[in-house]
Amino acid sequence: MLDTTRKITVCLSPALLPLHDIKNSIVVVIDIFRASTSMCYGIANGAEGIIPVAEVSTCAIYKDHGYLLAAERNGEVVDGFDFGNSPFSYVEEKVKGRTIVLTTTNGTKAIHLSREAKKVVIGSFLNLSILCDWLQKQKEDILLVCAGWKDNFNLEDTIFAGAVINKLKASHQKEDDASIAAETLYNCAQPDISTYLAESAHSRRLQNLGIQKDIDFCLQVDTLNVIPVLEGDRLVELKEY
Amino acid sequence: MLDTTRKITVCLSPALLPLHDIKNSIVVVIDIFRASTSMCYGIANGAEGIIPVAEVSTCAIYKDHGYLLAAERNGEVVDGFDFGNSPFSYVEEKVKGRTIVLTTTNGTKAIHLSREAKKVVIGSFLNLSILCDWLQKQKEDILLVCAGWKDNFNLEDTIFAGAVINKLKASHQKEDDASIAAETLYNCAQPDISTYLAESAHSRRLQNLGIQKDIDFCLQVDTLNVIPVLEGDRLVELKEY
Repeated sequence: MLDTTRKITVCLSPALLPLHDIKNSIVVVIDIFRASTSMCYGIANGAEGIIPVAEVSTCAIYKDHGYLLAAERNGEVVDGFDFGNSPFSYVEEKVKGRTIVLTTTNGTKAIHLSREAKKVVIGSFLNLSILCDWLQKQKEDILLVCAGWKDNFNLEDTIFAGAVINKLKASHQKEDDASIAAETLYNCAQPDISTYLAESAHSRRLQNLGIQKDIDFCLQVDTLNVIPVLEGDRLVELKEY
Repeated sequence: MLDTTRKITVCLSPALLPLHDIKNSIVVVIDIFRASTSMCYGIANGAEGIIPVAEVSTCAIYKDHGYLLAAERNGEVVDGFDFGNSPFSYVEEKVKGRTIVLTTTNGTKAIHLSREAKKVVIGSFLNLSILCDWLQKQKEDILLVCAGWKDNFNLEDTIFAGAVINKLKASHQKEDDASIAAETLYNCAQPDISTYLAESAHSRRLQNLGIQKDIDFCLQVDTLNVIPVLEGDRLVELKEY
């Protein structure tokens, strides 16, 4: 039976976050291409933690203190940094046992703006099912925050939000038009999300950067069994299942 | 052949307007339930002009100067005003030869925020085809501005944007993810937009106000042959076809 006391809403852009009830929700931050995917992959590969910071200059402060530094702007690694937000930089041999300090164009900003939430967790297609299984067990409203691209709406984050809504339809009621739209877009993009997204603005941007393999990687479903959760200043693996 | 020099983009909320190139576009303001529909209907029924104002207090200043005053907040007529934004108030016997001063929760705000555009015109399902025929002839980029609901995304404005994009696909290229999403949502909502919208937040809000007949009215397609255009401080009928 539908438990109508639990609600799910979608924030389509960080610029619209002031309209949402962050404090009384579990927030899922979504930045499919590529920050939230890489965060999940890095945590799954043994990174001890990922510290999201808003500015490149803040990231640089951590230099020479044993951290791995990752900085991305406009889809590219910032000069002088170990790596950006390509998931292929977050493999076990690079990140196991390490703490990463990360700044990205959109994803880390969305995390910072959401930090008053009851909990902030990270979603990607790679950890879709375990994330939804966990969300389904929580007695809280859910706010899905699409990181977008420089405050613009984007398709891939919205379609992922729709995938979450679709999986939670037995436990959570769609509360706003954005959640209805996200689920419709997900249903339309199925069964071939990759083809649907090929025309999207960010896909085109990433294709221009020559990173089609990153796109393909980010659209894998359920390859991981971890949920990054914000604890204090850093994302760590959620332990309580 | 697709003329790729002309672009179409969608602004999903007035809060996202700063991200868009208003000055170099023709802006179509969309507030399906109910302001933009009533504006089209009022102009078609012989209103000389409609002056959109942002505040109820501004609207009140026009009292006793021969204007019809219309003020809506939260879906209801503001106390002391002639009418709100129900299309049934904009019939010929009430508006013919009159100038209306109008303030609404969302639509008039969107018009004000768009007034730097090359032209601001008003779109609704009632004037969909004539609007698109005219847009198709213009040598300009188009920005479709969804008025939303208190800066929130809404379905009905977005689906109308998708209907415009669908009609202009031979002449205008979808430039952003919002335009791709809007067209997908329109295609999914077809052939029964009314049923699809029945679950939308604003439909539920209007149903609670007992104005289902307004909703049905606003979803009629191509019943009018006018395009309201902003000239100075007022909307008038566009004459140059």
